[in-house]
Order: sequence, then C-alpha cells, then structure tokens
Amino acid sequence: MGEKVPHGLESFFRPRGVAVVGSTGEGKMGRVLVDQLVAGGYSPVYAVNPRGEGAPGVRAAARSFAELAGAGHVVDLAVIASPADTVAAMLEDAGRAGVHAAAVIASGFAECGEKAKEEALVRVACTYGIRFIGPNCAGLVNTKRSLFPTLETRPPMGDVALVSQSGALGGAVLSWAEEQGVGFSKFVSYGNGADLTDVDFLDYLRGDDETKVVALYLETVSDGRAFLEAARQLTAVKPLVVIKSGRSAAGGRATLSHTGSLAGTDAVYDAAFRQCGAMRVDGIEEMFDVCRGLASFPPVRGKRVVIVTNSGGPGVLSTDAAEAVGLDLAPPSPTLRRRLAERLPSYCSLGNPIDLTVQGGEAEYRDVLSMALEEYDAAVAIDVNTPYLDAALVARGIVTAAKVTGKPVAATFMAGKTAAAALPVLIAGSVPDFPTGERAVAVLALLANDQARRLGRRESSPPEPAKSSLPGQGLILSEPEAMDWLGAQGLPVPQRRLARSAEEAATAAAALGFPVAIKVVASGVVHKTDVGGVVLDVASKVSARSAFRELSERAKDLGFCGVLVVPMVRDAVEMLVGVSRDPQFGPVVAVGLGGVTAEALHDVALRVAPIDEAEARVMLGELRAPSLLGAFRGRPARDLGAFASLVARVSQLPFQYPDLAELDLNPVFALKAGVVIGDVRAARVGSDAVRGRTPSVRLDANQGTIA
Amino acid sequence: MGEKVPHGLESFFRPRGVAVVGSTGEGKMGRVLVDQLVAGGYSPVYAVNPRGEGAPGVRAAARSFAELAGAGHVVDLAVIASPADTVAAMLEDAGRAGVHAAAVIASGFAECGEKAKEEALVRVACTYGIRFIGPNCAGLVNTKRSLFPTLETRPPMGDVALVSQSGALGGAVLSWAEEQGVGFSKFVSYGNGADLTDVDFLDYLRGDDETKVVALYLETVSDGRAFLEAARQLTAVKPLVVIKSGRSAAGGRATLSHTGSLAGTDAVYDAAFRQCGAMRVDGIEEMFDVCRGLASFPPVRGKRVVIVTNSGGPGVLSTDAAEAVGLDLAPPSPTLRRRLAERLPSYCSLGNPIDLTVQGGEAEYRDVLSMALEEYDAAVAIDVNTPYLDAALVARGIVTAAKVTGKPVAATFMAGKTAAAALPVLIAGSVPDFPTGERAVAVLALLANDQARRLGRRESSPPEPAKSSLPGQGLILSEPEAMDWLGAQGLPVPQRRLARSAEEAATAAAALGFPVAIKVVASGVVHKTDVGGVVLDVASKVSARSAFRELSERAKDLGFCGVLVVPMVRDAVEMLVGVSRDPQFGPVVAVGLGGVTAEALHDVALRVAPIDEAEARVMLGELRAPSLLGAFRGRPARDLGAFASLVARVSQLPFQYPDLAELDLNPVFALKAGVVIGDVRAARVGSDAVRGRTPSVRLDANQGTIA
Repeated sequence: MGEKVPHGLESFFRPRGVAVVGSTGEGKMGRVLVDQLVAGGYSPVYAVNPRGEGAPGVRAAARSFAELAGAGHVVDLAVIASPADTVAAMLEDAGRAGVHAAAVIASGFAECGEKAKEEALVRVACTYGIRFIGPNCAGLVNTKRSLFPTLETRPPMGDVALVSQSGALGGAVLSWAEEQGVGFSKFVSYGNGADLTDVDFLDYLRGDDETKVVALYLETVSDGRAFLEAARQLTAVKPLVVIKSGRSAAGGRATLSHTGSLAGTDAVYDAAFRQCGAMRVDGIEEMFDVCRGLASFPPVRGKRVVIVTNSGGPGVLSTDAAEAVGLDLAPPSPTLRRRLAERLPSYCSLGNPIDLTVQGGEAEYRDVLSMALEEYDAAVAIDVNTPYLDAALVARGIVTAAKVTGKPVAATFMAGKTAAAALPVLIAGSVPDFPTGERAVAVLALLANDQARRLGRRESSPPEPAKSSLPGQGLILSEPEAMDWLGAQGLPVPQRRLARSAEEAATAAAALGFPVAIKVVASGVVHKTDVGGVVLDVASKVSARSAFRELSERAKDLGFCGVLVVPMVRDAVEMLVGVSRDPQFGPVVAVGLGGVTAEALHDVALRVAPIDEAEARVMLGELRAPSLLGAFRGRPARDLGAFASLVARVSQLPFQYPDLAELDLNPVFALKAGVVIGDVRAARVGSDAVRGRTPSVRLDANQGTIA
Repeated sequence: MGEKVPHGLESFFRPRGVAVVGSTGEGKMGRVLVDQLVAGGYSPVYAVNPRGEGAPGVRAAARSFAELAGAGHVVDLAVIASPADTVAAMLEDAGRAGVHAAAVIASGFAECGEKAKEEALVRVACTYGIRFIGPNCAGLVNTKRSLFPTLETRPPMGDVALVSQSGALGGAVLSWAEEQGVGFSKFVSYGNGADLTDVDFLDYLRGDDETKVVALYLETVSDGRAFLEAARQLTAVKPLVVIKSGRSAAGGRATLSHTGSLAGTDAVYDAAFRQCGAMRVDGIEEMFDVCRGLASFPPVRGKRVVIVTNSGGPGVLSTDAAEAVGLDLAPPSPTLRRRLAERLPSYCSLGNPIDLTVQGGEAEYRDVLSMALEEYDAAVAIDVNTPYLDAALVARGIVTAAKVTGKPVAATFMAGKTAAAALPVLIAGSVPDFPTGERAVAVLALLANDQARRLGRRESSPPEPAKSSLPGQGLILSEPEAMDWLGAQGLPVPQRRLARSAEEAATAAAALGFPVAIKVVASGVVHKTDVGGVVLDVASKVSARSAFRELSERAKDLGFCGVLVVPMVRDAVEMLVGVSRDPQFGPVVAVGLGGVTAEALHDVALRVAPIDEAEARVMLGELRAPSLLGAFRGRPARDLGAFASLVARVSQLPFQYPDLAELDLNPVFALKAGVVIGDVRAARVGSDAVRGRTPSVRLDANQGTIA
C-alpha cells in the first residue's frame, strides 16, 4: 500500500503483510500466532491453511499463497506453523507467489533427527530465493512496527535487540523484560539455523537505526571466523552483549594446561569474544543489568567512580565490589572536598563513598552528584529508603544531576516497596536502577573496559603469507628438523649441533662452549624426559662422551639417531608459546608460563590467530603471574619486545603452513635481551599423536628455570 | 502479669513491658517508635518524657521510670530516643527503677567523636546492672512476640535472625524481605556496640528456639577470639551466614605475597569464618538467597544435583554454573534412565539436565523429580513459563516431589508475571524460588559444603604450651641463633656449621660434604640476596675459601660475623610457612609456595593459629597449585605428613613464645621424605623492622627450586 518493497532482512522486520500458515482453529498454534499479531496491533495479517479458514482480525484467508496473491494481497513474510511434513510444500507455495522471507516455527526437523526434512527446506529456499529462520524457532518481534509473529510474551519497546539461538531462553528474557526495566527493539530466535543464523542478524542489526544495543544468546557459533568478522563490524558501531552457554562442557581452564588441548574449549570462545569487542556475560540477570546500563548511560569514559549514599553499610559493600572489578574509587580532590563541606552538614562523610546520612534528600543528592561528577567519570547513587523518606524526591535529585552533568549515573534504590515510587521517575529520566550497588558497579566496570577497548581499537589484518609445506615426512617433526625449520622462519632457535657419535658430541660441546645440555634424538621418544633423554650441565668432553653413551643406551630400542648439543641457558624465565587448531575458530595461539609451572598453574592466555605484537603484550598482561617477566627482586626485566615478536610470528605459521596441526614451543627462555626457543614439538595435520598427548616438560631445575 | 521475669537477653526479646523514652509529639522519633510498637501489636507500651506525654495505644505515660514503677507498671525494656545529652540520666532513671535492658536509638555519641558521652552510658550501665544495645542503633525486632521497637520496616515472620552492626543496612534488608521471600524471627542492630555486640547475640541466638538460621552483617568484630568461639558454638547447632564488608580496604590477596603483611587483612577474616563454620557471602542478594535456602531446605547431604527443566537454554546455563561451583552433575544411572524413558515421551532429553520440553506439566515434574531424587542429593526445577503454561500446576508438581522425597528442591520460575501464580504454591510448600538457576545452584553448593564441614568437624583445642622467651637480644634473630632455636623446638633444621674464617669454612664444607651453600651472617644484612650474601653450589675447599672471602668483603661494613655452611638441597619444592599477629584475631599461620614464585603468584592459605595437622593439609589443598606437591611428571610426591606436622608445630610457637612477633620460614624444602627449613627470619615483639619489610627470597635457581 504505497510502502517500499523491503530488501534483505527487512522483509522479516518491516513486512508489508504477514501470512500465518497453519490451522487457525481454537487453541492451534496458527491461531495463537494470529492472535498475537492482531493483539500486538499489526496489520495486515493473512491466514493460509487447507480450509482457507480465517480468524478475528485476519484481513483475508486462503488455501494458498497463490490465492492470496491472486486477490491482490501483498505478503512479505510467511510464518509457518503447520506440521513438519507440510512445511516444504508450504514454503514452495510461498516462494512461487513471490514471498522471500519465512519464519518456520514448526518443529520436527534436525532437532528430532529428521535431517532430510530440514535439507528439503533449504533446497526449496534456494530454488525460490527465500531466506528463512528456523525451523524449530520462536519467531521474531519488531516492537517499533508492532510486529509480534511469535509464541512468546510481547516485550516492552526499547533499544535492545535480542538474537537467541534458543527460543525458550529468548522467551524467558522477553517475559522478564518489563520487571527488569529493559525494553526491546527487535527479537529473533533462529532455532535450528538451517538458513539464517547469528552472523546474518549481526550484519542486519549493525545498520538498524532502531537498535542501540545487541544482545545475543549463543550455544555455538555457526562459523567462527565469519562470526568474528560480523561481530567486529557490529561492535565498531554499537555494543554487543553475549551469553555463550556450555562453559562447563569444555571443562574450563583445567584443560588448558598445555596447548595441545586448547581446541574447542570454551576458553577459545572467551578469547574470540574479547577479540571482536563483544561483552561476555554469564547469565540472564547480568545480561539485563548490562543492557539496562547500555540503553540508558552515555559512554562510560573512565574508571573514576564516586558512590553517593545515605547509608554506610551498602556504601561499603559497593566499594568492595567496585575495587574488586577494577574501578578507581579515589577520594574527592581537596577542592571538591572543600565544596562538599560547604554544601553539607558536618556529620556527612566526605570520602568515597560520600555518605549523606538519612538526612540526604533531593537537593543533597542533586548538588553532591553534580559537583562530584565534575571530577569523576560516573556515579552510583544509593538510596536505602526508610518508610520516612520520599524516594521519588531522591530519584528526582539523581535524575537532575545525571541530566545536568551528562555523565553516567546508576541508581540503587534498595528497599523493596518503600522505594517503589522512585522507579517511574528514574525510568522517565533515563537513569537505570540496579538491585544492589554491587551490580551497578559491575556494569560500570564492564562498560568502562568496553569503552577503553573501543578507543584502543586497532584494525590489524596481517598480510596472508604465501602457502608452504612443513619439512620432512613424519607426523611429528624431529627436534633438529623442527629447529632448522623454525630457524628458517627467522625465529630465535639456539645454537645447536647434531652429534651421531660420542666423539662428535664431545667436539660439538667444546665448540659450543661448556656447559652444554645434551638431548636425545630418537623417532620413538615422545617425551624426552620420560626416558631420561636430557643430560644437563655437561661441563667437559669426558662428560659429553659419557652423556652420549648413556642416551644412546636408553633409547637404543626407540629409534636412536643421535643427540642434539645446545648451550645451557641460565637465569631465564620459562614461557610457552603454542598454536593449535580449534574446530570453530581455526588457528589459535597460546602464551603461558612454561615448564612444570605451566601445568601446575594452568596459566595460559589465548587468542584466535593471527595476532600482532601489541596483542601479544596484552596476552602477557592477562597471565596470573605477569610479574615474573618484569624486573623483580634484583632479577632483570625480560625482553618483552622480543617475546611479543616471537608470539606474533608464531601466530602466522598455521596460515603459512596449512599442514601444521600443532606447534608447541616449551620452554621458550625469556632473557634480559632476547628470547631463545628451548624445545619444540611440531605435529603435522593427520597426526594421531596430537590428541590426548601430554606436553613435553623439563624435569630438571638447572636450565633457565624460575627461581 | 503472671509472665516469667526474663533473664539475660530475654529482657530485650521477651519483655513484659516496653517504655519509649523521648518526646511523643507528632513526628518525633519517640512517637514513631511508639507507633511502630502499637501498630506491630505489642502491649503494654509506656512513654517516659519530661512532660509525661502519652500517645495513642500507650498504656501509661510518666515523667520517670520511678513514677511508672510506683504505679505498678512492669517495664523490662527501655527504648531511648531522647537527645544524646539526656541519655545517661534516663538510663540511670531506668536502672534505679529496676530496668535491666535498654536500646539506645539516640545518636550523637562516639560516631560523632563524643566518646565521653558514650563512656558515661557504660558507667551507668555497670552501676545498675543494665545491658544495652547502641547507642546509634536501629533497635530490635521479635516478630514472634509482635515486638518492633525500631525505626525500620516491620519484616515478615520467619526463621532467620538478623544481627547487623549497621542499622541502615539492617533496615534495607528488612524492607526487602517480603519481596525476597525471607521471613525473620528476630532483628537487632547494635550500632556503636558500647555494651552488647556480635558475640553476645551469637550466644543468645544459639539457644533461641525461634531461630533456625542466623545472618550477621559485620564491619569489624569486637573481639576476634571471642567471636571465633561464639561462632563455633553457634554453628554447631545452626547455620551462620555472614556479610563482612571492607574487603577492598585491605587490598585483598594482592597484599598476601608474604607473611609479613598478613596482619589485619580481610583474608584473615576469610580464614576465621572458615574455621568457625560461618558461611561468608558477598552481599545482600546472596545473603537472601542463602537464607531462603537454609530456611526451607532439609540438609543438603551431597553434591550430586539433578536439573529438571522445560527449556534447554536455562538448563545449560545452570549446568555451567553448577560445575563452576563444584557440584556433581553426573548423568542419570542406566536404571533411572530406563525408568525415565518409560515415563516420558521420546522427545525429552534424559541427560542432566533432564529436559521435559514445554510439554512438561505437573505430573511430569512430580514424577521425574521423585524418581531422580532417589539417586541425587538435591534438585533444581526450572520452569521457563510461557503465557500458555499453568505455573501454579507446575509448582504443585515440584512441591509434591519435594515432600515425597524429603530432599532439597530449589525452584526457578523464570518469567516474571507469567510465573507469578507459582509463588504462593511454592511458599506454602516450603520450596524456595530463585530468580535464576545459577543462583539456585550457588546456594546448593554452599550448603553442601557447609554440611560436609559439619560432618567433618573436629573440635581440637591443643594444650596451652608452657610460656617461654626467644633466645638472644636483637629484635631480629641472627640465622644461626634462629636455626638453633628452631632445632631445639624439634623442627627440621638443616645440618649447618658456623665458620668465622676461610679455613673454618673450607673445613665445615668438607665435613658436610660437597656441594654446599655458604650464606653470610651479618647483623646489618636484612636480605642476604640484596647484598649477594649467598654462594651456591660450592664444590671444593678452594671454592669455599674464596666464597668466605667474597662474603666477608661484601658485608664488611654490615657487621659481618661469619658464614653459615649448609648442604645443597636438590629436587625440592620450595614452600613457605609463617606466623604473624593479626590485630583482631591474634596469631595467624600462613602456608604457600616459597621463593620468588610465592611473591609472583600470591598463593597463600591462612588460618587463625593454632591448627592441627589435618587442618594444615586442608590449607595445602586451598593453594592454587597444590599439584606441585603431588607426584607429577616423573617427580616424586612430597612428604605431606612431615610438612603438615611442621605447620601445626609452627602455629603453636606464638603461644609458647609471646615475644615472637613474626616468623618466616622461606623456603621450606619439601622433599620426597621429610622437609628441611631453608631459611628463617624471626622477629621479636617491638621490632620496628617487622612492618613494611620485604620478604627474603632466593634469587638463584639452583637450590631446591621448582623446575
């Protein structure tokens, strides 16, 4: 009717007409959908079913889309709730009639093992150029068009778009929205995701002016790299809040003790979300908290937060929580303190928190917040309301301060019914209310970090290197082979000599300079230390000869082919660097403490590869014990630049060498100047030995260890 | 009126009559208190004020307590809200008339710097045998006697007693109680705590049959050891939930890198709460969650939890959270699985969570929970309610299962208004409802741990050792002095020889057997490593002589008096053991990783001393890297028995040696068999050097370090 023909996903969210496919008999799913659409205020609604049955509010009913089209009705979106066996035919009918968007609410497809039925839908969709959500989905919502083709609760209107893989979880969020004070612009649940998925909706919502914030519930990404790219583009223009379930299934950090088991873990998702600028939250309550803040706050430009309260206890609890999440609760400057002292009675406490006591009313909250926000980045205003305080007035004071200063102010009205009068005032004034100060500061910290990340954002897409192949034939490269290869990549390998006799070993050791370490080279030795395959601190030719004889004896049935002689390294911090391939996200790079310490402490930082040096430095900062690399009790600081450069370079290798399944550099000796790779394990794609293996660690304390 | 004369704190909670002291004029605090008492249903209420003014509901008003007594009125509790300057006189008046309990609501005392006024109250109370709460407190509540002498909201009746140092925080909790579904038996806020404090109320509530659970908000304990004892006795009969604010003030774990800065930190509170069986929570919401569970659940006897849901997403989020808090979400046994499969349609998922899908109604929840709880310890029942599900029926099914099985069942009805009908059914059935499954499993985990601690509870009160004094005179004991002293205590000190010349050093080294370590002994050397005061791996007499000369040269201006020669220790794990004195709790014992690692990782476990060996083993389990002590990649397991015995013994020393301010054993070498103290630092009480010092750490990798 004069409306523009929608393009792309607009057909879903701005259709010129919606047809519900399925019986409209009382209590049937088709009827519930029609009722929702009509009650929500959308028009025109059509019905398509074998009997051409209508329902109250339906503009026209027909037996097919062709019939509707023939009668001059324009339908942009088909909402299909007919039995699974009929869906493909109905989709085809819709496609023939020129409908290009469908929401398949019907279930009974891949989720029940009926993959063929789902593939049939995809084929039909391809043939007719239809895009669809589902099957087995909960439909969609566009509050700003009064469009509710869904079985779920109609949520209040607002600026948050929710994309949910799970229909039920999406439904729970929508039902809870009003109570939580969060409004939605759009909602879509894509169920089995046979056609449209996470990536498509992130792309669409990026350009959607009606959406300020995107919230996403994921069980698994459809395509890791595509998701990363879509999310990166989205977060360049608006915030993305993600719940990713299945943390526990991966076994968490406990499995991260070595790079070999990095693949597919939840920690890779964590890294990916960080890299694409998404804010990961743990559950629905936190998601609501964050969205409430994002929808109302101006940007949180820093971490200096002031807490203004009328009660000591809750103020202190908020302070504890604020420091725990890394906010800066510096006390007021002398100037501010003087101004506050002039404004307030002497019994008020002028630290941070600023405690107005129960005497604090509208004027005190307004004036104190306004003054304080001249020097703080954000504020939390706590009102522990007693039956004798007018919460609405206090709220008015807080709202005024937020308006006047243009800075983020979070409210916490803590006392159930006695504070209820504050809520409408806060909502009207765009000041979000949080159940506790602890939850308010958690949101401020998250948003401040997000803002900082935005400002520090670097778009680095390192050049795609020329493809090449690993040397040799074996599934696991021998150490000399791997070291030569790493050296050829320009990586810092140690001086080394391969020796095939006791005499060669003695000569090599003398040439390198004593003391040296002598390591077995044998195709059957997986972990050198398991067979006593390393002799350290070899200080003479005599010792070198005897070390050779010892090692050749120990590995005589294990394909012994010589020893590698390397100089001893002292006073190094042992680190590890590794790459492996994640089934969702592809190459992943890991950095951590090396040696036994790594395994005992599970102290590893991860990224989806490739990364640059700056990102490698950020990873080091995420380790629990980053201080080991700094100057420390008389020990020198380590060469972070050289280390970061190594990490960045290693993160490129899986792209350059598509046959590299996994690379473990452990230990890497971090020195005062430079770094040296201490040991290497490289596995070729197809190597069975890669999975379930244990990492190679050094058992002796004497080489380059942490004191 | 025929009622028993109350004794002890009964006068507060079961008074035969209550008199409010202060003006009863409209809007005055005295009037508000009278109104609260009357509206709450208590009788008889009296008023005492200079004009002998009454108010509606007051049985009699008088100018003094003497006048009331003269008229035959019995008053057990005086509630004083008159101006600060008048309180002492009013208290005296009450005391003369035989009143032995008072709640001083009035403020204007120590909290405003008026210490003398507060001391005057204490003197009057002593003279007349009065016990009082306050001043500057919010009064008290006994819902079971309809007694509300408080300015705060009257809470719903229930089984939780709340003791709050902060009146305002207590008030916030009471106001929120109804919304949170938690009822209270008693409430008391003790404000400045001039007389009665935390310890008194814990003692009283232990024997209070009307209280099933005690909740406590603390800013600081009045007396650490007395608190520990009172809390220990309380938790032997009922659970204690504590919020202790001020976590951040102490700077958290970051300050725990060495034992010297343990004193007064929040971590000592953490340890104390653990030792006395209290459950520490972070904030008010968590406190409500835990109290709701404690008030409703039967004991949580284990960690095997089943999640029954009608929606995948929230089920998975709860599973993630459950595993994160250490619950066991094993799948159903084959038998149970078979029974479930017979009972349920094929589209239900029979893992853990058990997903009933949206088809799950009253009967499914009831039957599935009943069957599952035959093999699980507890259950979480999640209903993501859609507008088309009858939440009350689902709730009825859950309640029936909880009744039939007698096991803890937590409910999570996730969808705001659409699930509201469930709440009355759940409350009537004593099934607590949690906003999310994540919060439900957090409570179950906390209670399961608490229950396990109860069962494993050992009441150990080691014998008080005979008092003695440290050897020598200096504020810091020299190393030979300290080692001799430790040896005399039966602690595992190394073989060692003090040498005063190069020749003596060479002889000593040869006698001990090469290689040895040689350490400087000099009164002016605080940290040996700072001056290069340790030479390791001395392998010959020649080297021993040169080491002596080197060390004597380095410390020549630092009171050099010789060197200590000790055998080198290899392949040890370095640990630390220390004791210090906390201002609140007295002697504290710490265990952690030793050497530089300790400082980098802040990995320390704490206890209020003394402890026994079993507790020392528990401490080791709390370290982040307990695996370093176990058998590990070919390294032997360490002698935990010997280490625990050392820790227990060391934890007794501050009691035996009251002049021992601080003792630092770092490193302690944990070996395959036995342990050896590597270095010691002992400071005498009065030593200025104790505070703010940095710990002694070993800079070289070669002795007994972690590989």
